[in-house]
Amino acid sequence: MDKLYVVKIGGNIIDSESALETFLREFAQFDGRLVLVHGGGKLATRLGEALNIPQQLIDGRRITDAETLKVVTMVYAGYVNKNIVAKLQARSRNAIGICGADGDLVRAKKRSHPSIDYGFVGDVLGVNAALLKKLLQDKMVPVIAPVSHDGTGQLLNTNADTIAQEIARSLANDFEVTLVYGFENAGVMRDVNDADSVIPRLDSSTYRLLKDDGVIYAGMIPKLDNAFAALDAGIKKVIIGKASDLRQLIEGNKGTTISNG
Amino acid sequence: MDKLYVVKIGGNIIDSESALETFLREFAQFDGRLVLVHGGGKLATRLGEALNIPQQLIDGRRITDAETLKVVTMVYAGYVNKNIVAKLQARSRNAIGICGADGDLVRAKKRSHPSIDYGFVGDVLGVNAALLKKLLQDKMVPVIAPVSHDGTGQLLNTNADTIAQEIARSLANDFEVTLVYGFENAGVMRDVNDADSVIPRLDSSTYRLLKDDGVIYAGMIPKLDNAFAALDAGIKKVIIGKASDLRQLIEGNKGTTISNG
Repeated sequence: MDKLYVVKIGGNIIDSESALETFLREFAQFDGRLVLVHGGGKLATRLGEALNIPQQLIDGRRITDAETLKVVTMVYAGYVNKNIVAKLQARSRNAIGICGADGDLVRAKKRSHPSIDYGFVGDVLGVNAALLKKLLQDKMVPVIAPVSHDGTGQLLNTNADTIAQEIARSLANDFEVTLVYGFENAGVMRDVNDADSVIPRLDSSTYRLLKDDGVIYAGMIPKLDNAFAALDAGIKKVIIGKASDLRQLIEGNKGTTISNG
Repeated sequence: MDKLYVVKIGGNIIDSESALETFLREFAQFDGRLVLVHGGGKLATRLGEALNIPQQLIDGRRITDAETLKVVTMVYAGYVNKNIVAKLQARSRNAIGICGADGDLVRAKKRSHPSIDYGFVGDVLGVNAALLKKLLQDKMVPVIAPVSHDGTGQLLNTNADTIAQEIARSLANDFEVTLVYGFENAGVMRDVNDADSVIPRLDSSTYRLLKDDGVIYAGMIPKLDNAFAALDAGIKKVIIGKASDLRQLIEGNKGTTISNG
């Protein structure tokens, strides 16, 4: 099977022009099938503040009201998405920027919760893998903004990590898929303050041991649980590390590579 | 040759939720190959005002500085584009929303003028017709935001009428192309205050006569000159009329149909 890399980059890379440039240079040079999923960074928060849209947080979770959804759609699917696409085009990668509504790429349902109204937040129902396969076949690089739709005309703010994972899973029958989570840290670390303490390789039994010993930083646990769920769903490898180290992450020389056996 | 309709809608339709709904219902029901090009409406102006971005006008032309380009990209390629796509998806049309940077669809160069710096405004150099043909072949409906790129990473604000025309021209060898300009008026009128004075058909000799007689409203002349240039470039018909009358415009029962002979 051909290899495919689904790369997710988070807010910290997007917020820094130089970090984004460094990442995109690495990404564009990588000579393989690529899908890029991006978050939105602090731009959406700043735009919301500039427009005096009150930020509602319930139990630490941001609520996406109608005005916030508008901001999210403008920043993620507009500004961030199109700037990444233009920069990749400048590096001779034929990027095409879409969100989950485009070509029915990511269908979701509005989150329902017994006591909290999260607003216009979507939980993913399915991915249109056929569209991605066509774009990849035509040597395009899909660049995906974390906005989905519910099929009745409603856009929904959707977690970019989840979209990356669902996309990776949807393509696992057609490609040997590696899912790369690029973030600000060097990988999964034994000591969050020591960049040299990166755990280079994790399989499920090592993960269980480290988790039992309390070595894994609590904030990483949901990410890692998701990573192992992705492996169970047919994804070959999940790599977590610094986005700007993309090539070395993929080569296994940096970051944390998570695989079964 | 198969028929293709390139439909452009302007700000007045986008600014009115009910006008947009009416138009999209007509558009989605139309059973043929479609490309939609949209403008941005007053939303971009309002967002610019809310963010205290000064609107610069020189000789009545809006200048697109870096901050205005950001607003344009957010509103046109983000908010407006994705909402249209989601609404078409809800009507079972497989819309895909892209701008000129996506898939290198519309390459442009920054406008240069001996005395006026228009800022980040693009003049179209070329259209990637192959991408549109692929999307149409896959029964998708491309929905295009009027933002292009220069190939070096710079997005450029670009006239939606021009983009619609360039796209129509680029596909004229492969399809029998009709270009529809949907706007707020019922068509080209003898008397701008009399909706019953629509000129149903115009060819170049009639146009010359009417223009010489001063019957054509001055504001329409650049649009009509463009329309005849489009016919010369191989487009079969140009239709101008009210966007919500789409079906009747296409059937030739409303609006002004411009063709050679």
